[in-house]
Amino acid sequence: VKTSVSSLAVVGGMPAFPDRLNAGQNNLPGWERFERSLRDIFARRYYTNHGPLVQELESRLAGFFGVKNVICMTNGTIGLMIAARALGLRGRVIVPAFTSVATIQSLTWAGLEPVFCDVDPLTHRITTALVEPLIDDTVSAILGVHLWGNACDPREFEKLAEKKVVRLYFDAAHAFGSVHDGIPIGRFGDAEVFSLNSDNILNAAEGCCICTDDDALAESLRNIRSSYGIRTPVSVPITGNGRMSEAQAALALLSLEDFPGNRMLNAERFDSYRTQLAAVPGIRFIEPQQGDQSNYQHVVVEIDSKGFGLARDALKRVLEAENISCAHFAPGGWHRRKPYADLFPQYMNALENTDIISSRIMLLPSGQQVSSKTVSSLCSLIGFIHEHAAAICVELERVA
Amino acid sequence: VKTSVSSLAVVGGMPAFPDRLNAGQNNLPGWERFERSLRDIFARRYYTNHGPLVQELESRLAGFFGVKNVICMTNGTIGLMIAARALGLRGRVIVPAFTSVATIQSLTWAGLEPVFCDVDPLTHRITTALVEPLIDDTVSAILGVHLWGNACDPREFEKLAEKKVVRLYFDAAHAFGSVHDGIPIGRFGDAEVFSLNSDNILNAAEGCCICTDDDALAESLRNIRSSYGIRTPVSVPITGNGRMSEAQAALALLSLEDFPGNRMLNAERFDSYRTQLAAVPGIRFIEPQQGDQSNYQHVVVEIDSKGFGLARDALKRVLEAENISCAHFAPGGWHRRKPYADLFPQYMNALENTDIISSRIMLLPSGQQVSSKTVSSLCSLIGFIHEHAAAICVELERVA
Repeated sequence: VKTSVSSLAVVGGMPAFPDRLNAGQNNLPGWERFERSLRDIFARRYYTNHGPLVQELESRLAGFFGVKNVICMTNGTIGLMIAARALGLRGRVIVPAFTSVATIQSLTWAGLEPVFCDVDPLTHRITTALVEPLIDDTVSAILGVHLWGNACDPREFEKLAEKKVVRLYFDAAHAFGSVHDGIPIGRFGDAEVFSLNSDNILNAAEGCCICTDDDALAESLRNIRSSYGIRTPVSVPITGNGRMSEAQAALALLSLEDFPGNRMLNAERFDSYRTQLAAVPGIRFIEPQQGDQSNYQHVVVEIDSKGFGLARDALKRVLEAENISCAHFAPGGWHRRKPYADLFPQYMNALENTDIISSRIMLLPSGQQVSSKTVSSLCSLIGFIHEHAAAICVELERVA
Repeated sequence: VKTSVSSLAVVGGMPAFPDRLNAGQNNLPGWERFERSLRDIFARRYYTNHGPLVQELESRLAGFFGVKNVICMTNGTIGLMIAARALGLRGRVIVPAFTSVATIQSLTWAGLEPVFCDVDPLTHRITTALVEPLIDDTVSAILGVHLWGNACDPREFEKLAEKKVVRLYFDAAHAFGSVHDGIPIGRFGDAEVFSLNSDNILNAAEGCCICTDDDALAESLRNIRSSYGIRTPVSVPITGNGRMSEAQAALALLSLEDFPGNRMLNAERFDSYRTQLAAVPGIRFIEPQQGDQSNYQHVVVEIDSKGFGLARDALKRVLEAENISCAHFAPGGWHRRKPYADLFPQYMNALENTDIISSRIMLLPSGQQVSSKTVSSLCSLIGFIHEHAAAICVELERVA
């Protein structure tokens, strides 16, 4: 691909990839199948408000997860906001600062205060050891995050929540179809909230589903969502609009059919990246936990600048120019970003692992858009960048 | 249609209408045009997060309204919630209790307290005379509602807001394409928020657009919405997810093309209902204000039980059985419903006009689903019910 440092796009060469590659999944069903679904929606003239396709999706997902209740919503942020209200939370909620911003926003919209928690430096996930010391009388819940599709020890968290009498729910945006210790993510805690954004393996363009075995909680979620899907009217602190449209449900149903194939493709890509980058020093893959099954929707690496020869930011800059977009994720941890840095300055220097990880991580492109040839080209390119790291450093200074 | 009281469906006869008729608009473009838009979305593989169709929709709507900024969102409730946050409101906000529940919910989600206001008994809308006495130091804004597509005197409210130094914004869910005194709704107050729910004349299945000439407010709205559509990063109190998908924008763009035709159809239906029910006593139409243009998306009548011979609830019951669903709207006023009745019991008996109107109003079906023949049949049926009101009363008691 690249034969000399001067051929890199960042110093004026042609980009290695003609089309921009992003880190999200962006998987799509074939047009013919989607067209059929949409024709049916038009024939029925029923587009939203708990239509037949949303009902079918909820029922299929309940079977997929093996839970009693699945409640679909229009996006994950709304889902998390409505979950916080339905759980009747008060005061403060423990949440990692290293997560999607939606996890934290949802608390603010629900009138709650986040208690920012650090994460394990190897897995990037919260642990009960990190969370337990933060629980006091002002804390009403733990909002766990199954980061990168890997479970954050839900059984240990269930024990902790029971012991401390706090509610436990999960942002499972990354973990659709992941399995922990033989049990699908979706069956843990009081509820688990999945985003069906197009970045994720299950794609409703925008969308969300919430799993719970607690029938009373499910009724509250349905009542707060506001749609014909309310089964029993129950008293809720507030209502909202979380309705999923029929077009969203149509896309999600097709994406659900395609899930096994998309998961396999993700696993292959993950494996290719890992194999082909094994010889490049300073790159560490975030692996699924032993014994668990991941959906492999994220290919996440940490760049150690000493080993690799370039810091993460410099590598990202070189790759961006080659048309590889390695998404920002929780840049610096949300405790360091507005509005949270102003509201809760006490966390500024309190989350050491989050700070270190934030400066090192990088997401590599995957999903249907990425062929095995693309993976090979990208791995070669990263290898080339490592080999010429010193010369590239000089060039980057020059063109800065 | 009906020749005897015993042939009414409520006492066991066949329903007059084989398919259920609802009070919303539910207008659709032809399938071929929508299919073309969706094919393009699939070809681009770009489904959400401020894609090309959302950008086109915002630009076209800005032209339609003649405003500097239009910001699209995924639904009206979210739009109102984000507007309240972007305006930086604090404390209490004056709002009519006679409105869609979303108007009021949005305040609660934004951490604000509603100050429930009564409405004018003839127009069903708030007036400055009703609002002014409620303004005190705890009030930061007025949230007006252009009920039934008719403007609630925006110029007088602009003067009042300036005098009292409070913010002014409008829930314009009913008023897409309505014109007040030569100026389109969308250009008044600090911002106007339109729902593009399928019930409304502009249909994005679910959707919303916010109009404002205030560039700083527009940037806040875009930043809180969270999408690539952020132009300038500005400091906001919180972010959220209000992203509109490309499929929503595709539908809205086609619906915008169809707007003149749909408006004309609505005006014709409104006129037919009014003409054909003119001879039936006890039915009063809520008319657009003199000199204004309405989108006529709602056909709203008040039933006076003395004149008509049956109360509204009895008439609704008879019509429901005939497959005519005359939507509930703000049943009893939201000050009388949970959770607001518990939170703010002081309003329980304070909104006399709202209480009276709530017991009398009825929405009649309109939009593309309703032919002129259907209007005639329905008017004949209502005439028949009036003529046999006494006998029907007896029958209703019998089958209750």
